[in-house]
Amino acid sequence: MKKLINSPDSLITDALRGIAAAHPDLAVDAENRVISRAQPAAAKVGLVSGGGSGHEPLHGGYVGYGMLDAAAPGEVYTSPVPDQILAATQAASTGRGVLHIVKNYTGDVLNFRMAAELAEDDDIRVVSVVTNDDVAVEDSTFTAGRRGTGGTIVVEKIAGAAAEEGADLDTVARLATEVNERSRSFGIALHAGTVPAAGTPGFDLADNEIELGVGIHGEPGRARGEFAPVRELVAYALDAIHADRTVSGNVLVIMNGQGGTPLIELYAAHAEAAAWLAGRGVTVARNLVGNYITSLDQAGFSITVTELSDELVRLWDAPVSTPALRWGM
Amino acid sequence: MKKLINSPDSLITDALRGIAAAHPDLAVDAENRVISRAQPAAAKVGLVSGGGSGHEPLHGGYVGYGMLDAAAPGEVYTSPVPDQILAATQAASTGRGVLHIVKNYTGDVLNFRMAAELAEDDDIRVVSVVTNDDVAVEDSTFTAGRRGTGGTIVVEKIAGAAAEEGADLDTVARLATEVNERSRSFGIALHAGTVPAAGTPGFDLADNEIELGVGIHGEPGRARGEFAPVRELVAYALDAIHADRTVSGNVLVIMNGQGGTPLIELYAAHAEAAAWLAGRGVTVARNLVGNYITSLDQAGFSITVTELSDELVRLWDAPVSTPALRWGM
Repeated sequence: MKKLINSPDSLITDALRGIAAAHPDLAVDAENRVISRAQPAAAKVGLVSGGGSGHEPLHGGYVGYGMLDAAAPGEVYTSPVPDQILAATQAASTGRGVLHIVKNYTGDVLNFRMAAELAEDDDIRVVSVVTNDDVAVEDSTFTAGRRGTGGTIVVEKIAGAAAEEGADLDTVARLATEVNERSRSFGIALHAGTVPAAGTPGFDLADNEIELGVGIHGEPGRARGEFAPVRELVAYALDAIHADRTVSGNVLVIMNGQGGTPLIELYAAHAEAAAWLAGRGVTVARNLVGNYITSLDQAGFSITVTELSDELVRLWDAPVSTPALRWGM
Repeated sequence: MKKLINSPDSLITDALRGIAAAHPDLAVDAENRVISRAQPAAAKVGLVSGGGSGHEPLHGGYVGYGMLDAAAPGEVYTSPVPDQILAATQAASTGRGVLHIVKNYTGDVLNFRMAAELAEDDDIRVVSVVTNDDVAVEDSTFTAGRRGTGGTIVVEKIAGAAAEEGADLDTVARLATEVNERSRSFGIALHAGTVPAAGTPGFDLADNEIELGVGIHGEPGRARGEFAPVRELVAYALDAIHADRTVSGNVLVIMNGQGGTPLIELYAAHAEAAAWLAGRGVTVARNLVGNYITSLDQAGFSITVTELSDELVRLWDAPVSTPALRWGM
């Protein structure tokens, strides 16, 4: 294994130092492992997310005006601990309550729940929204129920915009829930990523094999498939999404890279997604193409489709200033 | 080889379709293979760049307000042809002349020169600036003289800002030349990228080997080295840059991924670069961390250091709206 690390043990600490150096708009609490806004927001609903590391820019890259107030990064593919999530919640709190945006993995759900209870003892009202947009499997290695993946980014953006506008906690939580319900994702891996502490790829794929419905930690999906042209792979993913929730109207598409896939391939994949959707009369009103929720150096892609309303388009377009998403300011 | 492609032959066409679908602010001329602004600029100096594909987001991802007017992407790792560059030059021309920003590779230099001559026949005045910021080697597989790499992005941003402000062609060219002279880069590869038409990695590295000073097409660098902690790799790269041009004052740092390196590792690398520079009294006034000039799915990083002046900081901070860089608007 060759990686740009000093050691697997120091990777998160080292990466946090790099984030602190790169982004003066962020504050990095190295002791508690919390990334928050250097300039905390004035009174508004606070937004907190977090989860295992290895999915960058998720979640630290979405801290800033118009999205999150704080993020709690765990060790690689490992949930953050309750005290850490509590510290993030305290950093995000301005007195109007805090929304926890939690991807549906058992460890994350438990630890965020415990942190929410600790925060309530601190008189911080917390509401949690659990994302579960991945249609690949009903239960999985680390999950009871569906996994939360790329839809989480849409939830963070839309809820963040509403919070910035002054919406109250129940309104922000309702919007977050609505976005999750309107979002579906599906991922396909060509090569497994390597967890630094393990040193070898998380699973083996033969030269002509791919993993259909792979999770963001390399968890198994629906099936091993045969490698095929990108047109077929994208159609497989969109068929799976469409079978679960009819894709129609105006949609947001995230053509996401898993960390080891070059941008030129993601554009080739996006061309196929756009053609598939146009062929069904669906309008791609907004899109992102790039690495937004990754799995270390895994090669592959995931597609997230969110059905938009006028209100959701407006909130998506609202100004945002984070390391990974920035527009309108 | 497993890649998100339909076939190696169709990759550029497919990726251009994806770029067109993803970015309504861009116009994609599929026949001539030119990416330009959907809304051409009012009278100003036009900026054109281009080169082989496989380095995305370079150059198409830098087309838009505040940077390029048009880009000409060749086949993978292959120079664009003169007629294509001519079409880009015509798309960029508003009557105030056009700057060609050319990375120093023999094919690029020749084809841009031929295109400039054709443009002059069209009464478009063209000035060319050739970037050669890579300190790794004096001559290389595809180059007489030093290679142009990450410094090109800084040239495009600064020259683009000046052009947007209404500077004339000679002023914009002078600034571009100054930025190139102030910029130095060095890259290290951990694993070679795979050109789709070749189907196998461009070079072989043993489990403990790395390529020191690698080029953006996987060309050999100074030496094969032994794999080492990121602190040592970053120090090696910065030592090489510093030996060539003293690193001092206020600098812009680009900690760039080569396409197959996850962001968490780039942040770990950036932490080491920041520490190295702080230890020498150098201020990192601006930085980028991410995939800005890639080599398909190659794993590794490159560092670009540009010594800034107040004027260059001002132009770097000027508003920009492109797929890959966006701020201030």
